[in-house]
Amino acid sequence: MTHVVTLNAGSSSLKFGLFELGGSDPVTVCTGAVDRIGEPGTFVKARTVDGEVLANGTPGAMPDHASALDWVLVLLGRTYPECEITAVGHRIVHGGPDIDTPLPLTAMSITALDKLSPFAPLHQPHNLAGVRAAMARFPNAVQIACFDTAFHRHHPWENDVFALPREYYDKGVRRYGFHGLSYEYISDHLAETAPLLHAGRVVVAHLGNGASMCAMIGGRSVGSTMGFSALDGLPMGTRCGQLDPGVLLYLMEQEGLSASEISDLLFKRSGLLGLSGLSNDMRTLERADTRETRQAISYFTFRIRRELGAMSAILGGIDALVFTGGIGENSRLVRDRVCSGMGWLGIELDPDANADNDRIISTNLSRVSVMVIPTNEELVIARAAADLLAAQPNEARA
Amino acid sequence: MTHVVTLNAGSSSLKFGLFELGGSDPVTVCTGAVDRIGEPGTFVKARTVDGEVLANGTPGAMPDHASALDWVLVLLGRTYPECEITAVGHRIVHGGPDIDTPLPLTAMSITALDKLSPFAPLHQPHNLAGVRAAMARFPNAVQIACFDTAFHRHHPWENDVFALPREYYDKGVRRYGFHGLSYEYISDHLAETAPLLHAGRVVVAHLGNGASMCAMIGGRSVGSTMGFSALDGLPMGTRCGQLDPGVLLYLMEQEGLSASEISDLLFKRSGLLGLSGLSNDMRTLERADTRETRQAISYFTFRIRRELGAMSAILGGIDALVFTGGIGENSRLVRDRVCSGMGWLGIELDPDANADNDRIISTNLSRVSVMVIPTNEELVIARAAADLLAAQPNEARA
Repeated sequence: MTHVVTLNAGSSSLKFGLFELGGSDPVTVCTGAVDRIGEPGTFVKARTVDGEVLANGTPGAMPDHASALDWVLVLLGRTYPECEITAVGHRIVHGGPDIDTPLPLTAMSITALDKLSPFAPLHQPHNLAGVRAAMARFPNAVQIACFDTAFHRHHPWENDVFALPREYYDKGVRRYGFHGLSYEYISDHLAETAPLLHAGRVVVAHLGNGASMCAMIGGRSVGSTMGFSALDGLPMGTRCGQLDPGVLLYLMEQEGLSASEISDLLFKRSGLLGLSGLSNDMRTLERADTRETRQAISYFTFRIRRELGAMSAILGGIDALVFTGGIGENSRLVRDRVCSGMGWLGIELDPDANADNDRIISTNLSRVSVMVIPTNEELVIARAAADLLAAQPNEARA
Repeated sequence: MTHVVTLNAGSSSLKFGLFELGGSDPVTVCTGAVDRIGEPGTFVKARTVDGEVLANGTPGAMPDHASALDWVLVLLGRTYPECEITAVGHRIVHGGPDIDTPLPLTAMSITALDKLSPFAPLHQPHNLAGVRAAMARFPNAVQIACFDTAFHRHHPWENDVFALPREYYDKGVRRYGFHGLSYEYISDHLAETAPLLHAGRVVVAHLGNGASMCAMIGGRSVGSTMGFSALDGLPMGTRCGQLDPGVLLYLMEQEGLSASEISDLLFKRSGLLGLSGLSNDMRTLERADTRETRQAISYFTFRIRRELGAMSAILGGIDALVFTGGIGENSRLVRDRVCSGMGWLGIELDPDANADNDRIISTNLSRVSVMVIPTNEELVIARAAADLLAAQPNEARA
């Protein structure tokens, strides 16, 4: 049996999945993650698609992504000795202005992707470290890159550009948009299960520790709340979201902060954590129920509502609103707050369906369908790998 | 007869107006401006309310605001020798987090306003230079400050805060909003001429060389596209408008730009000028009709449409849209582009009324009233001065 491993390497984490190929769609075998790579208390977890726990605990120090990948390989080799890994699919944050599809990776294309690191200095180098580790461990497998920016690469020019001198657009300072694998999953899912909505005007709210919204027409992205970096748009667990550029000038001129100090502030100490003073985790904030945590949640839902109006304006109206991501799939409170008082837009929430985390949480009379759809970025990577394998001549395969 | 002089001091300009008090509302006598103060080719213009030209040309070098004010005083003294100037009203960009009304100015309050200069380093010092010059020239007149931030000071917390650690809110890093004198004029005008709309949900688009939008309920501001500085929100003549904070990190880290270089780029070389490569003036862009100027206009109207959706979300729907400011009052093209395809929001433009610059430019069937209302910030300042004079004990008057 041929299999695909999917890898999603963050700054100190490595998420992975094992998928079986051969049928019409890749089938999940198991998924897991290594957290706190290079830090004390490296933590691993893995379970099969049936819920059987394969790993859960602290297996000892892992100084880098290569050692984390080695741990994953030992686990997979021991648990599934019959597996033939023919492809490894990678989530890569940045594909630059031109790439709009998954790509097979070579030493040359990795060098090209490395050149995009200035656009995503906190993410791209870690993604590519994962690719290099996987190439060393699977020298005969096809390596495939899936880009968080690719799904957004056909935005109209007006939604791609900033009002800077034109040379900045030419050198790549654009509104890329991210979370593209998640949006692609939602788009494909709608095409299968709700083709009329898929053909229409859909806003997807991907609300996790990272958060953004995407405006789609006919299943294609025409706009996103995220822009050049993963900082813009909605507030996130520890990231600020939309911020007046004058605030950065103030931090530079009045507080004398350096670029790395500002980056640390805006990426790691802001967002829900900064406003609540407590946590970046919505579950913790909902439980705590203090003035500060209530305010942090209010700000989060206020900005989502504001951007829901903005995305609807881009689309010329809205037919469906989809919640996904950890918060979108699980927080009844957040969904209720986002949708309440949105009758002017045609949204009418069904409180019982919302409380039950149903797939459709709007009433029968709601002009806009409101849905909860769990995302599956790993499956999108596995599908891309399966498609690329099927398209490749046989001799290129392991 | 008692009169009020209004002053609006920019970085290299001084706009002024003379108003006669005594009736129910101040009456404009004349208005004018000194441009290019401290630069070669200082230019003056002034005309009476009836259109009679009082000055138009280059009267010689004016090194600072004091000399510009002297020129204004000579002009007014010569033209209206019978005038008794009992008050001078100043437009001040920043009143900080607490001030929500006009204030009589004293040496002490000027010192306090000076402390807000870090929040508006390009504007506040020039505003206060104008105040100091006026105090020296009119030692017996009441000096009154009207703040561009005051009209917005009762925004809900969620629309006042950024998702930064809480101490930044406490030290004044907030979404202040500006153009408050213009919005106050529109609010007052609606209260008089269209009380039902005034009571409802109104979005005002102040589109000039500076540009922002304001969401009002019952005539009071609940949100604005401008935030901490005059950079945020809509793109402007030379200012960038909304910008991903990651772009500033990129400019610092990858291009090695200093705070003052970034400030110069974002305040003076971006916006319509940056995108068109030609001009910050909408009239010039409309006439030129090149690919670049068309794109600059497209971006401008795209962002207005996007923020119209966002402001409507803040309001929970919209009853009226008001265009004001130089572009809002005069550009049929911009108004047409903003309103076309906005039927989902209840907007239906009347093309003939729009072409004629009528006061109401929506059709009779349009659910949302779309209006063109010329703004008058000077009159708002003169009214504030008249109110403060009326409230002051007699002995405090000149």
